[in-house]
Amino acid sequence: MKLSRLGEFGLIDRIRRKVAVGRGVRLGIGDDAAWVDHPQGSSLVTADLLIEGIHFDLKWTSLADLGYKSLAVNISDIAAMGGTPAYVMLSLGIPANFDSSNIDALYRGIKSLAKQHDITIVGGDTNTADLLIISVCLIGHPPKKPICRSGAQVGDDIYVTGTLGDAALGLNLLRLKRRPQSGAVAQLLKRHHRPAPRLAAGRLLAKRNLATAMIDVSDGLIQDLGHICQASAVGANLQQDKLPLSGAYRAVAGKLDMRHALSGGEDYELLFCAARQKRRRIQTLGTQVGVPMTRIGVCVPAVNGIRVIDTAGLEIAVKAQGHDHFKKQ
Amino acid sequence: MKLSRLGEFGLIDRIRRKVAVGRGVRLGIGDDAAWVDHPQGSSLVTADLLIEGIHFDLKWTSLADLGYKSLAVNISDIAAMGGTPAYVMLSLGIPANFDSSNIDALYRGIKSLAKQHDITIVGGDTNTADLLIISVCLIGHPPKKPICRSGAQVGDDIYVTGTLGDAALGLNLLRLKRRPQSGAVAQLLKRHHRPAPRLAAGRLLAKRNLATAMIDVSDGLIQDLGHICQASAVGANLQQDKLPLSGAYRAVAGKLDMRHALSGGEDYELLFCAARQKRRRIQTLGTQVGVPMTRIGVCVPAVNGIRVIDTAGLEIAVKAQGHDHFKKQ
Repeated sequence: MKLSRLGEFGLIDRIRRKVAVGRGVRLGIGDDAAWVDHPQGSSLVTADLLIEGIHFDLKWTSLADLGYKSLAVNISDIAAMGGTPAYVMLSLGIPANFDSSNIDALYRGIKSLAKQHDITIVGGDTNTADLLIISVCLIGHPPKKPICRSGAQVGDDIYVTGTLGDAALGLNLLRLKRRPQSGAVAQLLKRHHRPAPRLAAGRLLAKRNLATAMIDVSDGLIQDLGHICQASAVGANLQQDKLPLSGAYRAVAGKLDMRHALSGGEDYELLFCAARQKRRRIQTLGTQVGVPMTRIGVCVPAVNGIRVIDTAGLEIAVKAQGHDHFKKQ
Repeated sequence: MKLSRLGEFGLIDRIRRKVAVGRGVRLGIGDDAAWVDHPQGSSLVTADLLIEGIHFDLKWTSLADLGYKSLAVNISDIAAMGGTPAYVMLSLGIPANFDSSNIDALYRGIKSLAKQHDITIVGGDTNTADLLIISVCLIGHPPKKPICRSGAQVGDDIYVTGTLGDAALGLNLLRLKRRPQSGAVAQLLKRHHRPAPRLAAGRLLAKRNLATAMIDVSDGLIQDLGHICQASAVGANLQQDKLPLSGAYRAVAGKLDMRHALSGGEDYELLFCAARQKRRRIQTLGTQVGVPMTRIGVCVPAVNGIRVIDTAGLEIAVKAQGHDHFKKQ
């Protein structure tokens, strides 16, 4: 079958069915990170492969930002399990026209974020290539009980940290070659280039046993919520007017244009579900870590699917697709 | 500085100097695998990035062989520490003209080897790309005392498992478009396509505390021995007539052409050093696991460098270089 017909998630499903879950694997393909046993203890592991021309464009991304971001997206996966990242394997395919200062810039970006979170680069592989390839594998320590995608229950509240759509809007501005002439534009570009993984929030949600399911928003709210719904066998009703938008988003896109907030990827916020009785403790946690926790909807029976409701109580048509690497967008 | 001037190992050294060794890292960049601590226990981790046109050519490599080999080269790194591989993260960049049967073939090759060694694919990342990219990160369990590159002492014997040069000779035959019309050619091609990582040998060498330093032969005997010599601050004298050649090698290249045995890469044999008094126990171990253990030389003071001596006791000029991805060969 053509991969463009199968789609990215169809392919992942196909791979998952072919790959048996072996000894020591507590959680394999299909969550934000794998969870594996050692003779003593266990680890979380996640990986991302970033390819020039597919995931980034060096015309509008500096190598330092790119280094930062390639680690950030992996940290975000560990955060979405409630874990603590520790060790990075970094493999690079390096174009022939690069010199050592380019590699230094890339490492500078990675190290600036690694240092913040006490993460060490422990190895990897370097090669020549026709284009820049960055492959990151991040190993972390799990909390006592990692938060999977599969634990949401009908009746659970749905929350998201921070604000939605900023990174996608920032990318749009880059494509339109908008310079950061205003504070709002600068802020959106920063959200695209240097997303802040919600590590402290994720870790405390796990530690205090507050969330029933969690994922990071990498492909877009609707799509990532879809992963939780599928894994948990629930549906979801979202209230559009509850979606948290930044001042910068409202200034640049207007508060009525919800497309980026609903389907834009790369925000790296945490999307999670929690029982109603945890509301107060979740707000307390948000205040403690300085990250807004916004209740945006509720889990309903699976047959409902995912619906977005406007202030008048009417359902808004939303394309359920965010980003799929194999389908033509 | 241009990377072609700095070279692959110059770049790795530069990266190593820039990357601080953080908390929990027992062994970072610069050995076959990293060795890292968890809150309980520890792991070995290694990674390889294989890029179409750089590391393989789909004209003469099947996807199943390629899948097998991308895991084999990583298993070999864990073997060279005396460890036991357990979990794979597999990230793929997939060309647009691939269909699902191509991906199935690649996984079939990986799984055939994974199954042999009880290894599970636990996650990764899939993307479209203009060319096939295979990024493997392998996590394993360390022996009580992993064997590093840095423990060789002056006076130690130098050993290699199996035979040398077969894979490089096989690759040459592929480039010359030689079909496996003879058993010898078929054997050399198999050594290139499906190298057998020396896992049992590596594990027992560690368990029985027999080797002082170890590495796998991926870039060529002279170059990989150079890594041991540099890490251990020793030199080495090799006896050319002791280098183990397969019957196939002798039949195809003749026993006088030692170039592939000395500098050809990708044999994935284990090269290790051991104290003189371990000779008998090492031969016993070789018999037990069914892998020849050949004594090929001795460690000498570092000032000597690496020398290859012929039967008449004369030094043979050897280019110290095996494969360097950044230098023009």
